[in-house]
Amino acid sequence: MSTAPAPPAAARRDLRALFAPESVAVVGASDDPVKWGNWLARGAIRAEHRRAVHLVNRRGGEVLGRPAHRSLAELPAAPELVVLAVPPAAVEQAVDDALAAGARAIVAITAGEADGDAGGARDAALAARVRAAGAVLLGPNCMGVFDAGSELELSAAELPPGAIGLVSQSGNLALELGLLAAEAGLGFSRFVSLGNQADLESVDLVRDLAEHDATELIAVYVEDFRDGRAFAAAAQAARAAGKHVVLLAIEHTEATARAVRSHTGALASDTAAIDAACRAAGIERVRAPQEMIDLAEGLLRAGRPAGRRIAILADGGGHGGVAAGLAHTAGLELPALGPATVSALRARLPPTAAAANPVDLAGGGEQDIRTFDHAARALLDSGEVDALLITGYFGGYSEYGEAMARAEISVAGALGDAVRTTGRPLVVHSMYGRNAATEALRQAGVPVYRTVERAVATLARLARAGASAPDGVPAVPPPAPPVSDSDYAAARALLAAGGVPFAPAQIVTADEEAVAAAQRVGYPVVLKALGLLHKSDAGGVVLGLRDEAALSAAVAGVRARLEPPALSVEHMAPIADGIELLIGARRDPRFGPVALAGLGGVYAEVLDDVAVALAPVGEDQAERMLRSLRAAALLRGARGRPPVDVRAAARALAALSRVAAAHPEIAEIEVNPLLALPDGALGLDARIVLAAPPDAAP
Amino acid sequence: MSTAPAPPAAARRDLRALFAPESVAVVGASDDPVKWGNWLARGAIRAEHRRAVHLVNRRGGEVLGRPAHRSLAELPAAPELVVLAVPPAAVEQAVDDALAAGARAIVAITAGEADGDAGGARDAALAARVRAAGAVLLGPNCMGVFDAGSELELSAAELPPGAIGLVSQSGNLALELGLLAAEAGLGFSRFVSLGNQADLESVDLVRDLAEHDATELIAVYVEDFRDGRAFAAAAQAARAAGKHVVLLAIEHTEATARAVRSHTGALASDTAAIDAACRAAGIERVRAPQEMIDLAEGLLRAGRPAGRRIAILADGGGHGGVAAGLAHTAGLELPALGPATVSALRARLPPTAAAANPVDLAGGGEQDIRTFDHAARALLDSGEVDALLITGYFGGYSEYGEAMARAEISVAGALGDAVRTTGRPLVVHSMYGRNAATEALRQAGVPVYRTVERAVATLARLARAGASAPDGVPAVPPPAPPVSDSDYAAARALLAAGGVPFAPAQIVTADEEAVAAAQRVGYPVVLKALGLLHKSDAGGVVLGLRDEAALSAAVAGVRARLEPPALSVEHMAPIADGIELLIGARRDPRFGPVALAGLGGVYAEVLDDVAVALAPVGEDQAERMLRSLRAAALLRGARGRPPVDVRAAARALAALSRVAAAHPEIAEIEVNPLLALPDGALGLDARIVLAAPPDAAP
Repeated sequence: MSTAPAPPAAARRDLRALFAPESVAVVGASDDPVKWGNWLARGAIRAEHRRAVHLVNRRGGEVLGRPAHRSLAELPAAPELVVLAVPPAAVEQAVDDALAAGARAIVAITAGEADGDAGGARDAALAARVRAAGAVLLGPNCMGVFDAGSELELSAAELPPGAIGLVSQSGNLALELGLLAAEAGLGFSRFVSLGNQADLESVDLVRDLAEHDATELIAVYVEDFRDGRAFAAAAQAARAAGKHVVLLAIEHTEATARAVRSHTGALASDTAAIDAACRAAGIERVRAPQEMIDLAEGLLRAGRPAGRRIAILADGGGHGGVAAGLAHTAGLELPALGPATVSALRARLPPTAAAANPVDLAGGGEQDIRTFDHAARALLDSGEVDALLITGYFGGYSEYGEAMARAEISVAGALGDAVRTTGRPLVVHSMYGRNAATEALRQAGVPVYRTVERAVATLARLARAGASAPDGVPAVPPPAPPVSDSDYAAARALLAAGGVPFAPAQIVTADEEAVAAAQRVGYPVVLKALGLLHKSDAGGVVLGLRDEAALSAAVAGVRARLEPPALSVEHMAPIADGIELLIGARRDPRFGPVALAGLGGVYAEVLDDVAVALAPVGEDQAERMLRSLRAAALLRGARGRPPVDVRAAARALAALSRVAAAHPEIAEIEVNPLLALPDGALGLDARIVLAAPPDAAP
Repeated sequence: MSTAPAPPAAARRDLRALFAPESVAVVGASDDPVKWGNWLARGAIRAEHRRAVHLVNRRGGEVLGRPAHRSLAELPAAPELVVLAVPPAAVEQAVDDALAAGARAIVAITAGEADGDAGGARDAALAARVRAAGAVLLGPNCMGVFDAGSELELSAAELPPGAIGLVSQSGNLALELGLLAAEAGLGFSRFVSLGNQADLESVDLVRDLAEHDATELIAVYVEDFRDGRAFAAAAQAARAAGKHVVLLAIEHTEATARAVRSHTGALASDTAAIDAACRAAGIERVRAPQEMIDLAEGLLRAGRPAGRRIAILADGGGHGGVAAGLAHTAGLELPALGPATVSALRARLPPTAAAANPVDLAGGGEQDIRTFDHAARALLDSGEVDALLITGYFGGYSEYGEAMARAEISVAGALGDAVRTTGRPLVVHSMYGRNAATEALRQAGVPVYRTVERAVATLARLARAGASAPDGVPAVPPPAPPVSDSDYAAARALLAAGGVPFAPAQIVTADEEAVAAAQRVGYPVVLKALGLLHKSDAGGVVLGLRDEAALSAAVAGVRARLEPPALSVEHMAPIADGIELLIGARRDPRFGPVALAGLGGVYAEVLDDVAVALAPVGEDQAERMLRSLRAAALLRGARGRPPVDVRAAARALAALSRVAAAHPEIAEIEVNPLLALPDGALGLDARIVLAAPPDAAP
């Protein structure tokens, strides 16, 4: 699939004509209520008080009681925005007509068209003509655009107004997000359906939303990130402008690749690369629509707590226990409460209540609903927790009758006051779903969830997001002179020149040079037979050669078994004193170079415990990566072993990542093992895989 | 806390008087609509056509328009069931009055009472008197009982009738489960609120529900399992009788222990022990109410697929991709479809559709809603998948108008037919929630979920449950003569006698005996200084002593540093040739002996990768435990290493588990490392922790 040449990476496109046009023309306007041309025309007409609306239908006559023009050429004035509801085969001509009529922005709907190489070439040509005219094109194969502020409703999705700017490459997912947001009492500032991204890409929309005042949260569903590094940088800029960014991105698997390729011809990025980009940019990644809306509700209503310490408040020990168990599993902490807080609680709670964490009102809510307010204040005021979760029955006391309902609504407001005065978030799980009391909570700035699973998952997510600053999206350095050799010697030389330390080694091609080489590097030595992909699997590595006799015997043995073209004679590192790590990098087709680190040796393949980040990484970030491993306790010295020099290993990882970032011709690069020692680190092997040249791509 | 002496473990209590009494008396019956005595009396009166109802209020007069008796002694006949809504202080007397009046079953409500040692002693005494009278007592501190078949509604929870038998130790969680079940169109055959379990315990209710025809699924929330092994055995019997068993059990953490202890004085079991019991008995464990109802819907409507292979069917690539990503993460497989299935799909789908897995109808549903039926049949008929997930828009085509709604309902029925004829389950995620079309799906035996997360999680759960038979709940053997020593020598001797292989060793108390010991075990040897908890951390283990000189020097060094009371001289095992495992067991206060296995040495503490099962385990089960580890690839021989003798390691684990099961005085027992070699396995260390004697408990 070919791709249209993109405009310069940092350029922000002018999208005013797309979102707030002075005039709009609907091509394919129709009276048939099951047709796109009907929905679009009616949407445009609803804002006739805001802008001139022109309906175009090649049969002319009347559409929706208004005169229809036979073509764009007939319009009395140039339309700023043209939206096309035409069959796939007519798109190219319609775009050209729109440009000829003076359009500054074009939205091409034409859903359901087949994709493929022909479509890609068509899209590239279209985009080039649009850009040459200084206009912008959304789609083709998209589901329209919506802007609440300018009352622009040119989409099939009925979206409530609100603070979410939604950019989606799937129309039906956008519909679902709209339904779920409405249930949560949330709405949209803008919605943009990306379609094929022939011209406008997700990065253009994120850049624009970053400066859109009405947008507080940017929600993105995208399958093909195009320039993923630029996308991450745009999201980072949006975060810097005070917007939240939530990304729904699917896992990259064989099956999802089938799903996505069949859908829009998009190329799914590696899941780990997307995660790395999200961590770098401060993007919150989610996996499903409800998770996205739950997190949006949490971010927009509650914000990020300062830490992971929470209190739980329930009327009933079962609810408190279930929530506490889920919170623990989600990585939240439930500290025991100090004596002052316990006293403050005891003073306001019935004697049967448990003034612990979780607090169990034990029927106290039934006796006096204000107990919730008193307990919540005591907990939020304590300074001992960063956030509060109320779980279970609240929202249901209204079932007891009118008076209780009024009291519950009043307590909901008081809970909102407690959040405002303490600055600490409150999240509520109410088993009773939506009613006047839970709506009052939402009005007071408290997110409310129907299930405790969702409440806890969101709170844990908010706490994680608040816990650490993103690492930032690194710039990819200009390419260094490319390497063409990918053998062990070349890999080792490239990495050593870049700053990765290796054990002293000499490569020899004649067996008789081995002994002299060993004298130079110093005994004991390791002998490696080169020219084999997995040297150690094939018996091509002989360890612990203490003298000339042992070395000569090993050389003879390797020669007889493997006939290697060359040998490496290396000073043997003190393997028993260290921990074997793996450091590496690979190049993602969208996000560029990605660095990774994990345990090395046999454990690298066996344990799924790898830290990943956009390359190049600095030494501090590299050290954080190593310390984030599940196996990091080994580095700190388990069971009486001395700790290893994590900083030295981090320096090696940072150096490797710089090499990888400067060599776009390298698809994969790896040092496995990197021996982390109590004092220093030593690469014991090196490997490069060069990218296939472009003309060799399938 | 003291516990009432339990009846013999295997005895099934006669609960007919509790669930289907001929007559019922409500003590504390009241006209006040916010009182328990009112709800219970009204509930009882609703079934006056089924049984005699007596209201008791110490003031006499009328209650709810019926004459009220001043005491149970005044009743014209003995009431089979007496339900007590009296203050905590009056419970004891009220129970005695009920027994005196001839009650066969007593339900003691009295919510909100404080717990503690005094309550425990009171409960034990109450239970003893009830048992002596041949009656049963539910509670105290419970929320009543409900039986749909006998129209017994003596509870605050309004529960729809259905196939779920619910046993709960939390009243509010039962209320929430009732609400969630109603939303899912599910209902309850019975509900029993356990309260303090003074007499009737969860195991009694599970035993009874196992033989209750109207109950198809037993749902349990319990905090204190009491005799956990008997509970697991009862659940196993229920599974054998064709019932599903779903257990909501909270994680055991410091905070949940606070929550639970404050609630009912219950003792939470270790999470791993509960998991082990669930795997043994075929119980499905869940963590939260929505998860419980989702799984109940899946089990009752769809059943268990034969395997993990699924197809996904969506109208829109985004929905298919999101579902495929979640399915992959959940451990489901999405096989590529064979050419015959692809042809069958192509023949019935529009040309723009993707006939892959996931299938994307790409608007085909809008054009012809029957496309769903055609595609579903092609997939379910293919033999290439075990189940089908439809995700996204289905349920929403009805939004297009009356005709489409009728068509969608008809397709829902056809989908149910496809499930019945193929015997392969279908699970549906509908973004439109409940409407006539999704209700038609449920009527046709198809579970429907509002979010794709819940649909995928449930389907993955069903597939896991179908994948393997439970191991069975092992009987705990009669106790062997107890051990009183817990030092290394005693641990090694006990385990060796039980069948765990160890390297040859000799324990000596005089340094000069070491050399002779080494001659007997054979060089090279390892020297261990005994009397230290972590020998290797303290430098009390010296490896690789090849001769007398080396051994003598090591003995002198250890003597100087540590002054050990004894030394162990052991033949050194070929550590480099094997994989170090950990095998062990510990005794859970409720579930008894539990066996565990993981990687050994430094990795045991660092990696959270442990398999757990109720002890004793057989050799086959022990081997499955070892092969279930994440690190199992190491055992199969990673990177050119030979595979190790997993069977020998499994034999050692089974032997250790038998020793642990036969020694209730042992709190913990462990061999770490157990060296798994290419041929055999060898214990290299052994450790016992004896349980504190009962009078030393806090």
